[in-house]
Amino acid sequence: MAAEPTAHPLVAKHRQLLDQALEAIGTRAYWSPHPEHPKAYGENGSLGPAEGKAAFDAVAGTRLDLGQPGTDDWVGGERSPYGPELGVEYPHPDPDVLLPAMRAGLPAWRAAGPELRAAVCLEVLARINARTHEFAHAVMHTSGQAFMMAFQAGGPHAQDRGLEAVAYAYAEQVRTPASAGWTKPQGKRDPLELTKRFTPVGRGVALVVGCNTFPTWNGYPGLFASLATGNAVLVKPHPRAVLPLALTVQVARAVLGDAGFDPDLVALAAERPGEGLAKTLALRPEVRIIDYTGSTEFGDWLEDNARQAQVYTEKAGVNTVVVDSTDDYKGMLANLAFSLSLYSGQMCTTPQNLLIPRDGITTDAGPRTYDEFVADLAAAVSGLLGDDARANGLLGALVNPGVKARLDAAPDLGEVALASRAVSNPEYPEAVVRTPAVVKLDGTKADDGAAYLGECFGPVSFAVSMDSTADSVELLRRTIREKGAMTVGAYTTSEEVARAVEEVCLDEPAQLSLNLTGGVYLNQTAAFSDFHGSGGNPAANATLCDGAFVAGRFRVVEVRGTV
Amino acid sequence: MAAEPTAHPLVAKHRQLLDQALEAIGTRAYWSPHPEHPKAYGENGSLGPAEGKAAFDAVAGTRLDLGQPGTDDWVGGERSPYGPELGVEYPHPDPDVLLPAMRAGLPAWRAAGPELRAAVCLEVLARINARTHEFAHAVMHTSGQAFMMAFQAGGPHAQDRGLEAVAYAYAEQVRTPASAGWTKPQGKRDPLELTKRFTPVGRGVALVVGCNTFPTWNGYPGLFASLATGNAVLVKPHPRAVLPLALTVQVARAVLGDAGFDPDLVALAAERPGEGLAKTLALRPEVRIIDYTGSTEFGDWLEDNARQAQVYTEKAGVNTVVVDSTDDYKGMLANLAFSLSLYSGQMCTTPQNLLIPRDGITTDAGPRTYDEFVADLAAAVSGLLGDDARANGLLGALVNPGVKARLDAAPDLGEVALASRAVSNPEYPEAVVRTPAVVKLDGTKADDGAAYLGECFGPVSFAVSMDSTADSVELLRRTIREKGAMTVGAYTTSEEVARAVEEVCLDEPAQLSLNLTGGVYLNQTAAFSDFHGSGGNPAANATLCDGAFVAGRFRVVEVRGTV
Repeated sequence: MAAEPTAHPLVAKHRQLLDQALEAIGTRAYWSPHPEHPKAYGENGSLGPAEGKAAFDAVAGTRLDLGQPGTDDWVGGERSPYGPELGVEYPHPDPDVLLPAMRAGLPAWRAAGPELRAAVCLEVLARINARTHEFAHAVMHTSGQAFMMAFQAGGPHAQDRGLEAVAYAYAEQVRTPASAGWTKPQGKRDPLELTKRFTPVGRGVALVVGCNTFPTWNGYPGLFASLATGNAVLVKPHPRAVLPLALTVQVARAVLGDAGFDPDLVALAAERPGEGLAKTLALRPEVRIIDYTGSTEFGDWLEDNARQAQVYTEKAGVNTVVVDSTDDYKGMLANLAFSLSLYSGQMCTTPQNLLIPRDGITTDAGPRTYDEFVADLAAAVSGLLGDDARANGLLGALVNPGVKARLDAAPDLGEVALASRAVSNPEYPEAVVRTPAVVKLDGTKADDGAAYLGECFGPVSFAVSMDSTADSVELLRRTIREKGAMTVGAYTTSEEVARAVEEVCLDEPAQLSLNLTGGVYLNQTAAFSDFHGSGGNPAANATLCDGAFVAGRFRVVEVRGTV
Repeated sequence: MAAEPTAHPLVAKHRQLLDQALEAIGTRAYWSPHPEHPKAYGENGSLGPAEGKAAFDAVAGTRLDLGQPGTDDWVGGERSPYGPELGVEYPHPDPDVLLPAMRAGLPAWRAAGPELRAAVCLEVLARINARTHEFAHAVMHTSGQAFMMAFQAGGPHAQDRGLEAVAYAYAEQVRTPASAGWTKPQGKRDPLELTKRFTPVGRGVALVVGCNTFPTWNGYPGLFASLATGNAVLVKPHPRAVLPLALTVQVARAVLGDAGFDPDLVALAAERPGEGLAKTLALRPEVRIIDYTGSTEFGDWLEDNARQAQVYTEKAGVNTVVVDSTDDYKGMLANLAFSLSLYSGQMCTTPQNLLIPRDGITTDAGPRTYDEFVADLAAAVSGLLGDDARANGLLGALVNPGVKARLDAAPDLGEVALASRAVSNPEYPEAVVRTPAVVKLDGTKADDGAAYLGECFGPVSFAVSMDSTADSVELLRRTIREKGAMTVGAYTTSEEVARAVEEVCLDEPAQLSLNLTGGVYLNQTAAFSDFHGSGGNPAANATLCDGAFVAGRFRVVEVRGTV
């Protein structure tokens, strides 16, 4: 009968934070323990701006030896979208050695129980948070995000999503008590009595397959959900975005070791160019959970083939905004312009298709025809990005040549309402910085449908002319059902239209933002409050974060009787 | 903005019961609102023994018209394992008509919200409970269970499992509040503010594929979990056990209609002989959830092929008891004898393999060699079933010819330590009633392994001689890992052995009963307290009932912003 290890110092240190996170996911009000302003760091043991930059510079050009068993080679080759080679070498694994080694620590990790596991995870996040400035540079120089975005989305916001996953994992595990007495009356006879113990047990090794654009933000939920539920976690980063997750693994291994657990419970699997290591690992019998963010093609392959594992995927989608009417035309244009521009549209949540009635929309600034609205939107984007310094700060760099190729091909798809502009970056002349393009398409033409019904990942959006808002709503339904959507937006002053759009989002499940005109954007979700994806349409089979995201990562074993 | 329908009369009627169920799944102490003694029924609107029998007799030989759309034919042909033809005709569906009709009621069912949906489910269960005597006959004459078992397992215990599923479903849905205000501070600027609404939405149509032996007990968890989470439910019963689920559907449709919802949210799909209707329905795009109890072959087929659906399966397993030592030899023998005998071993939880050290075991009655223990167990079974009336009450009838064929073939597998005996049933001379057979096998012989490593469903158990308890523990591990197990048992006075067996059950996840010597048996689990299956070994991919069993049946759609 294992005693509950309530007195562990890490539990004492982090229990209050865990309780706050548990409350936040219950109320879904605003909450975050991770400051998002760079100036908040530099005291109480956290790295300040210069220290963070120095730490990042110090790791460049080195071999990051994580002390992992089964390292048969060293691989690297990351090049920043801003130009510089990172020159970091990472361990390449022999799965036949590494995977069994990762399993060795599972019984002790299981015996630790949900509370201590959560506290260990929170210590990992706390140490990562203290190095946020360092991680910001690592995320910037792998994803191409501008520094401020890399700092916030790759730092505190990613840490929030990790903490949220730990909270869900903890809550799910303690829904069943550790033990119970069971006494069943038997009329005049003695009652039946049993003692029962319940232990949450992880499934085995969990594989996290990282993405290029948001290595920490998209990687942390699965990583921490699996670790907190008693699994070992193998992190296979995108070959262009290894460093942020390698540093994460380094911190996790140190915390595990310090807490007396096997550091091999968390390991990195960096791959050789073109190796396809994710495919190999995904089919290993030891791998029982997979979290993946990336292309629909590989996500579907994982779902179809990694049948020994629970597979959680975020894939491609076609995000749509229904534009019907507004009582804040200026706010709507500003909000949309920002959404299209942020990180050059390289977010899975960036709106792609704007569905606009051919006859125009009503606004507080008077009626606007389709052409007028598209021109106004183009002007709003141009205005937002007119200053190169500001443009660089918002756009970041194109993450890879594939994005640039799609952008270059955009004029072939239709009439260009807003041409993309190359922005020069004085600090990083090699960075490919581009403003978004807006292309006009006709929602009634089948040829145009081929364009707007595919995901065109990057800074390309389509202004699609429709016969009516009712047609827009129907195209929205078809788009979500067939192509999936991470986000849906709508602008309307009509209660009837709002309800029609909402019904579509309830039917096909998708997350809806209505009439955003201020400083919250369609492409941003806040941990503890907003769900990222619905898990109910083709864009993703899971959401960040709910009970379903964690409940399948462990099983509860009951022992009843005596001894 | 839909108001919470808190004032609905069904909510007022059932909210307290729901709260009690929610507390029970939290404490996992003994609890049930459904009396298990037949004499408890007959007042307060419930049917007494004679009324229940009369109701059952009245439905025999009739056409059970449920008023379902898309009924293209009438099918039937159930014959009781006790002999009589039931002669009931059921609607045969045209899925192209029935499935769209079932979807029609989904928006209103979604809008009802989690609390009213739970209350509707509880009203269905309450009306079923009032007809427990009628259901008992329906279960008895389809499963072959003896009356008392059909009454309890098919009545109150099944209702408990249904209520448990409703409680889990409700709890999971209300973990996210219906709405939230979100205010993010912005330093000296005005805070960002959003209003958010969260709506749980079902996935669509859920298919329940029933089994022959426990139509209600195994059918209710999936049925009620799906209905409570906002789905429509199509029930495809086993062709030999239609009536209990048809009556269930009848009650559910009546309650839905009375509450103002579309009765077609629950429907029956009875099939023609050899039609394979489950396969057809399982691949329909409207079907997004499947609950199945039955053979590994078809369970695996569903998991592999019904990719558009969440698939919850309970399949075959090989249940093992490690016999090492005991300080209550008499209690152990009595407990095992009862477990082997109950319902002629036709339970997915019946122990099949007893692993016994060749050199024998230590007991409070002195050491017993393998041969002595097996002889003592055989004597205990024979003693328990010596009286034909008692034997009939415990054994029930063999459910189908396949079980009898396996029993008849058992002597070919090894030395018979206890031969099966035919018991005559004076009331039902056609019933095939058999006592269990115990066959001796050698755990070190590969040929014997072919027998004990396959599921031999029915009244056949194997007394497997092992070189040592350590070998038993290793064979247990291999059996669970390769074949799965719904239940594991162990008898030992050694803390070390107990922990070794427990570690195996934690590693491979399986549910363990230790040293049961009284009136609780390995093959019985109590709703609200015991988990049925672990969902972590090949015998089942789900457990009854936990968060994972309900969390995937719905998604949460968020609407944020204004209007």
